[in-house]
Amino acid sequence: MKYSKLFGKATFDSSKDSKFASYNLLMKGGFIRESSAGRFFFLPLGWRVHDKIKAIIKEEMDKTGAQEMLVPTLHPLGLWEETNRTNSVGFELMKVQDRNGAEFALGGTAEEMFVDVVRKLHLSYKDLPINLYQFSNKFRDEFRARGGLLRVREFVMKDAYSFHTSEEDFLKEYEAMAAAYKRMYDRMGLEALQVSADNGYIGGEYCHEFQVESELGEGRFFVSEDGKYSAHEDVAEFLKEDKNSQEEMGEIREVRTKRGTTMEDAAKFHNLPLWQQMKNVLYRDETGRYIMASVRGDFDVNEEKVKHVAGVHHLEMATEDEVKNKIHSVRGFISPYKIRDQIEKDVQLLLVGDDSVRTIRNTYIGANKDQVEMLNVNLDRDFSFDIEGDIAMAQPGFKTKDGTSTLVEKRGIEVGNIFQLGYHYSKKMRDATFTSESGEQQPFYMGCYGFGIGRTLATVVEKHHDEKGIIWPSSIAPYQVHLISLQGGEDQSAAVYEQLQAAGVEVLWDDREESAGAKFANADLIGIPTRLIISKKTGDKIEWKARNSKESELISVEECLARCNNS
Amino acid sequence: MKYSKLFGKATFDSSKDSKFASYNLLMKGGFIRESSAGRFFFLPLGWRVHDKIKAIIKEEMDKTGAQEMLVPTLHPLGLWEETNRTNSVGFELMKVQDRNGAEFALGGTAEEMFVDVVRKLHLSYKDLPINLYQFSNKFRDEFRARGGLLRVREFVMKDAYSFHTSEEDFLKEYEAMAAAYKRMYDRMGLEALQVSADNGYIGGEYCHEFQVESELGEGRFFVSEDGKYSAHEDVAEFLKEDKNSQEEMGEIREVRTKRGTTMEDAAKFHNLPLWQQMKNVLYRDETGRYIMASVRGDFDVNEEKVKHVAGVHHLEMATEDEVKNKIHSVRGFISPYKIRDQIEKDVQLLLVGDDSVRTIRNTYIGANKDQVEMLNVNLDRDFSFDIEGDIAMAQPGFKTKDGTSTLVEKRGIEVGNIFQLGYHYSKKMRDATFTSESGEQQPFYMGCYGFGIGRTLATVVEKHHDEKGIIWPSSIAPYQVHLISLQGGEDQSAAVYEQLQAAGVEVLWDDREESAGAKFANADLIGIPTRLIISKKTGDKIEWKARNSKESELISVEECLARCNNS
Repeated sequence: MKYSKLFGKATFDSSKDSKFASYNLLMKGGFIRESSAGRFFFLPLGWRVHDKIKAIIKEEMDKTGAQEMLVPTLHPLGLWEETNRTNSVGFELMKVQDRNGAEFALGGTAEEMFVDVVRKLHLSYKDLPINLYQFSNKFRDEFRARGGLLRVREFVMKDAYSFHTSEEDFLKEYEAMAAAYKRMYDRMGLEALQVSADNGYIGGEYCHEFQVESELGEGRFFVSEDGKYSAHEDVAEFLKEDKNSQEEMGEIREVRTKRGTTMEDAAKFHNLPLWQQMKNVLYRDETGRYIMASVRGDFDVNEEKVKHVAGVHHLEMATEDEVKNKIHSVRGFISPYKIRDQIEKDVQLLLVGDDSVRTIRNTYIGANKDQVEMLNVNLDRDFSFDIEGDIAMAQPGFKTKDGTSTLVEKRGIEVGNIFQLGYHYSKKMRDATFTSESGEQQPFYMGCYGFGIGRTLATVVEKHHDEKGIIWPSSIAPYQVHLISLQGGEDQSAAVYEQLQAAGVEVLWDDREESAGAKFANADLIGIPTRLIISKKTGDKIEWKARNSKESELISVEECLARCNNS
Repeated sequence: MKYSKLFGKATFDSSKDSKFASYNLLMKGGFIRESSAGRFFFLPLGWRVHDKIKAIIKEEMDKTGAQEMLVPTLHPLGLWEETNRTNSVGFELMKVQDRNGAEFALGGTAEEMFVDVVRKLHLSYKDLPINLYQFSNKFRDEFRARGGLLRVREFVMKDAYSFHTSEEDFLKEYEAMAAAYKRMYDRMGLEALQVSADNGYIGGEYCHEFQVESELGEGRFFVSEDGKYSAHEDVAEFLKEDKNSQEEMGEIREVRTKRGTTMEDAAKFHNLPLWQQMKNVLYRDETGRYIMASVRGDFDVNEEKVKHVAGVHHLEMATEDEVKNKIHSVRGFISPYKIRDQIEKDVQLLLVGDDSVRTIRNTYIGANKDQVEMLNVNLDRDFSFDIEGDIAMAQPGFKTKDGTSTLVEKRGIEVGNIFQLGYHYSKKMRDATFTSESGEQQPFYMGCYGFGIGRTLATVVEKHHDEKGIIWPSSIAPYQVHLISLQGGEDQSAAVYEQLQAAGVEVLWDDREESAGAKFANADLIGIPTRLIISKKTGDKIEWKARNSKESELISVEECLARCNNS
């Protein structure tokens, strides 16, 4: 490709720079351009990289026996209603109506569509297992797009869905997919950690994310110092040491206080440890029901864990007005203590407690009245929860659940995920069954496996760049060779360009009339692995320099061709 | 690929058969499955064919120097408003709103998006010409989907857009694209005719379709017997021989008739030739304006030509009620004669005349009153048109415009099209300019080039099948070899399967426990070019049979491998 005719040339305009190197370098290098917020044009250079990532994914998927196909972009909304995802996905789901009034979802993922096509084909156990995948545009009506390709509203995703006769058979595929993902990241020059994660609106019982460590990543996760445990903050478990659960229960008593509304204010006022207190946070869910989440005083509430334990899709902090007029309590003094006695009958309230509350005795909590507190309050004797579970936030330095190691906090970019789905979809969707060996109809045991190409591409740039520009791993570089012709080297460049092309080497030739400095800066910004220079000075030789090295060497045309063919 | 694990096996259920062989065979063969009406799943077998067609298109596009990229699926609606296509495309355009209220079009084509990204990059004449293309999902809210993949509501299209400094430069690209398209069809086993066509809502001054002859095709077009002319019926020109235009004008007179409402009734009543009559058809356009289209009595009106000449997007036949109450005329007696004197002031009416009306004198037409007709009516003297042009329908047997040949009617499937756009988009969209050599901003001269993959795939099946199934051209066959193991041949089949795969041969192995008859029928239906059989009977040899031949031969494994590698 001649650079003079390439659509999407490099620019050095820093006026729109963000804190994300990938965004800045991909924009300046002529790889992408923004269309509307969160929706990008891939220019020819960027699309070549995208294509190479896609090819690696396809190769690794095919190696596992997965089969590529394609489902329509417009999913009949009725399918999403079968699984109730029109509600659970909420705002992020985009819908469209055709002129006959039929409604469709613009898929963010395609579980229902794959189950639908699979059930249409009436499979038997002999046809299984199968793993079906596609590359297609996915749509997410994100509230905020950010970081260029890192959080977008439209992107190409490889999504795969596997169907099995049993959990045992599924587990083999789950392992095979995890291994395939690791090979994909390896080949793209990424080190990705496999981390337990929350399954969000996908459903199922467990899942893993692949996280590439990055300060700028949106994901916060924990790994244990011994390397045996890794989990996203929203599912990270940790040891909740016993505090004083064996202490004798004291007599409950009411005291009048004169304190501020924070936890620390209360601890100071009573001169009691923070952990002996209970922290209570009031939310409202998507149905209008209130949810009070209670954790031990030295912990914080993890909202995602609350959603999971309570089985709700959306939580919002209750307003002060709601605390006052719906719950008839007072900010800073809200608690589960006798709370049901005072709320109105038409107000629904669910009390969710963290299991850490069982590690303490004689806790102190607000009495749902201004400046009134209860001391020596005890779970089961003085109050109870509707649901108990793990809703506390992990923190660095906390012990792993088995107590043998310590959690270290990391930030990362999620570049892929794999989900156990089990029977989540196959039991919600009618006829999502296969004929078993004994002739019965049995539901599929399922898994699914996602890989966003654009975000991975940007992550590679986050990890592979210097102050001058991108340093593409050869496996996904848009071209292998960046040929620069300087004054006096035009004719030889043209000949070498032809020779390289004839040899099947992917070469970008900067054939413009520009200064050497401009061409070098351009090449460094674009980040093609090998730079060749031909000028009056190089004579009948070629200057060879790797993008990731400072050294250059003068070599013959033959040597250059030989090296290019071997790389 | 082992057939036992292939998702999408052949079925022989004829209960849903349509008149379209491609639909029946692709469904039965396990290539596609319907999702909602006009939206299809591509199963793994079908997707492999789709992919091969895509690869051929990409190769031929790249050879011409075109550059692949990708634009978002959701087009900001504001762009379509810049070119007024939100109106001109009409119902076929699907729209979607995000949660911030921003509106988007689900693109059916992407002219605005490409102009938008090109103008963002501020090109100079040095960057030109460029031809940018993408493969992406296109959406058409078709009123009726039909014929399986032949008319759908969602499909993958290769769409390309070229930008030039001048018409001269564009013409070279237009020729290059026409030649590339011909190579693509050739390679896919299709004979496609390049036919002048109507540009519909794309705009521009001229365009060509590629039509593959088929009785079942929706397209009606004409070619001249001498092969020099070919055009879609909506643009086909023909010779409108002079009839009696030199005749002296007679005195206009009103006669009372007693006749039916057809053209023939009038000709019979007056005992005058049909051609001397004038045929007048009343339409209503998208703005509510009435349009009367008039042609010589022996011709018919072509609605698409009327739209083009009148510059409107949509026409509907006026109802009898409208003829009576809005135009105050009478069915069978409607004409341009003094029509404006009798319609109400708020009713808009445009009179459009075919140039054939100038080939006759002393015509006879209705007087817009029941059973009243005017004789010796003459254009210019007694009535006039607001617009004159070519609005008559070509018919087989008509002479070409230059009179040297005769039109022959054909039906075909449109498998691609190329459009001159000129300044149609670049003048409507602000800043769609490049910097010229003299430093001025000049609008781009443009063209665009579309290729629908699914329809082409179905067309190949329409042209390449027999009563048993599909006969894929090797270039786009899902696999090159269909290996069938029969009883006693299992072990050798497994070995040959491994050898073929190791040699890089695309092989589908029917490894199931099924009868020979079932496997043969399956292979014939799926249509892979070469069928291999290994059984007890074939000994250490292999039976080789081409799908398109009746002969089979016994050959050695080595010979088989050699043939496969050479094919």
